[in-house]
Amino acid sequence: MNEHYFAVIMAGGGGTRLWPLSRKSRPKQMLRLFGEHTLFQVAIHRLEGVFDPDHILVVTVADQAAKLREQWPEIPAENYLLEPMPRGTASVVGLAAVALQKRDPEATMAILTADHFIQDEEKFRRLLIAADEIARQGNLVTLGISPTYPSTGYGYIHRGKTAGEYQGMEAYEVLSFKEKPDEANARLMLQSGDYDWNSGMFIWRVDRILGEFQRLMPDLFGKLAELSQAWDTQARDEALSRIWPAIKSETIDYGIMEKAERVVVLPAKGLGWNDVGSWDSLFDVIPADQDGNIIVGADHIGIGTSGSLVFNDGSGRLIVTIGVKDLVLIDTGDALLVCTKESAQQVRLAVSQLKKANRQELL
Amino acid sequence: MNEHYFAVIMAGGGGTRLWPLSRKSRPKQMLRLFGEHTLFQVAIHRLEGVFDPDHILVVTVADQAAKLREQWPEIPAENYLLEPMPRGTASVVGLAAVALQKRDPEATMAILTADHFIQDEEKFRRLLIAADEIARQGNLVTLGISPTYPSTGYGYIHRGKTAGEYQGMEAYEVLSFKEKPDEANARLMLQSGDYDWNSGMFIWRVDRILGEFQRLMPDLFGKLAELSQAWDTQARDEALSRIWPAIKSETIDYGIMEKAERVVVLPAKGLGWNDVGSWDSLFDVIPADQDGNIIVGADHIGIGTSGSLVFNDGSGRLIVTIGVKDLVLIDTGDALLVCTKESAQQVRLAVSQLKKANRQELL
Repeated sequence: MNEHYFAVIMAGGGGTRLWPLSRKSRPKQMLRLFGEHTLFQVAIHRLEGVFDPDHILVVTVADQAAKLREQWPEIPAENYLLEPMPRGTASVVGLAAVALQKRDPEATMAILTADHFIQDEEKFRRLLIAADEIARQGNLVTLGISPTYPSTGYGYIHRGKTAGEYQGMEAYEVLSFKEKPDEANARLMLQSGDYDWNSGMFIWRVDRILGEFQRLMPDLFGKLAELSQAWDTQARDEALSRIWPAIKSETIDYGIMEKAERVVVLPAKGLGWNDVGSWDSLFDVIPADQDGNIIVGADHIGIGTSGSLVFNDGSGRLIVTIGVKDLVLIDTGDALLVCTKESAQQVRLAVSQLKKANRQELL
Repeated sequence: MNEHYFAVIMAGGGGTRLWPLSRKSRPKQMLRLFGEHTLFQVAIHRLEGVFDPDHILVVTVADQAAKLREQWPEIPAENYLLEPMPRGTASVVGLAAVALQKRDPEATMAILTADHFIQDEEKFRRLLIAADEIARQGNLVTLGISPTYPSTGYGYIHRGKTAGEYQGMEAYEVLSFKEKPDEANARLMLQSGDYDWNSGMFIWRVDRILGEFQRLMPDLFGKLAELSQAWDTQARDEALSRIWPAIKSETIDYGIMEKAERVVVLPAKGLGWNDVGSWDSLFDVIPADQDGNIIVGADHIGIGTSGSLVFNDGSGRLIVTIGVKDLVLIDTGDALLVCTKESAQQVRLAVSQLKKANRQELL
């Protein structure tokens, strides 16, 4: 293990795409989709051998911190960085950079997600080690995901010429970042073979990313500098509370990556990555039974039932399905979702209606 | 009102075709499918003007009697006839005939169901009055339902020549009863126009039906005679308990109607009768909204939802449906049924599985 290498887990997301299981009080990273462990626990567990718990930082918001800490008590309390309120991924990276620079000016940080699925964890660890090597040379590294279908839900990264081989894997200079495309452009990019999905996972040296903040997001950099001054003093919390509300929400992709210098992509082939962005994506990550059904936590009787997901959390009731195909059925204590696989993305419409109706108890 | 005319409501059925709402402890006649009233209450209410509460008998089993009595307290306690155990509709009729013969040897009895839907209640009352007139002349009257589709779920009655007009409605001699047909025969009978569905509602004089029992079911008649002897004594309950277990279960249709003399059918056109035999039948009796949905008792958000039934009883939870069509969703406190309209008849398969697994708490 490299003592200058740190993981930064972004675990502050709300996320309602897995409603009714995910709620404000139970964000996606706290869900137990695959068994006994939460997505957050899975995300930490797969870092074993690359990062000690002491070298794992978690950026979250105040009201999630206590629950997350229970999930992995070995991570020291001071490694939890609390945003007073969410301000986009740029400020998450900035906050972690400020903290790490104080702790280790030579630090490399791997910005990782808390709520994604990765099939081949061994490969993921090799990618992280390779990315550290690339980052040490002063590059901003992004992990690319080899696209498997013309997704309109992800951003794309255009690969340029090779940037060398690391841990047996080829890295490439990045020509450009493309925002979420329409269907036609998604097909073109998939066919060309020159594009990877933007995974939202980045690896860089703290000094390099702070340099890019200074150059590309000077306003945010000024605020981070102010925070840095207060960091090792009793004024840290006060500074955070004062500075954070004034930050304009921005993503690291738009704020930095699209304009940064020396950006390298490390494509991950066959990683089995999935952002579990909607209920239908569970069919890509959980093995189905012989009828194509996935039954999680449910006391279920299926008659003529195929291609369906039956998920029970909290109600304990018997669920009987008859003659249904490609259906998603999520049964929680106070809400029940029944939708077709095809319309799983529209869960957000239901959540919008609940917001409009101010039904806080269900959000 | 005719003082010699009595209604006999058969309310002892179990019935699991409306599972998970209907259970052993909550049989179909106790369900509130159409609002605040149970099917039993609806069945009694539509008799108003034809039968006083005092002239309404209810045949049921012991463990249902108390709950039924709460439903309509005006019916005297002694009008409840309790079978020690169900023994088919022939013995139900026999029990009622024994009781009525003691009370009024000139009685006519209308055997009616407790769990069917009738749209045109005014017409139903006219039919009952006409049937009484026909029965007084010594005929066994059956109410026929004009078929609206080639059902394979009902028995059919073959009409013969006219038997006169009563209350402006034509009655016919019955040529024969046909058991539930296959699809091809159902089509032929529908096309011929000479057949009515067997509604299971009958009207006859007590002396006439007892005469047919003596001729066609002598064994049962012997037992009924024995019961009759004990009826007005303290030995009634003992006699019932002793006699009933020895009765062979038989339907009145098979035991009597198919072989009886002087059988007359009174066809009910446009009665809007429905036996509510499965969840999909609710679409025939409850008006749907503009999307073809029927929402009963449910806190429901529907997005792209059409032709579906969402029924909530007891859970109170929010139900969200997205992108579903022709779906039936029955949410009760301890069980949830999701099936297509098309497969609503297969609910019995689920109930069979529960029986096999001895899951009494769900039956």
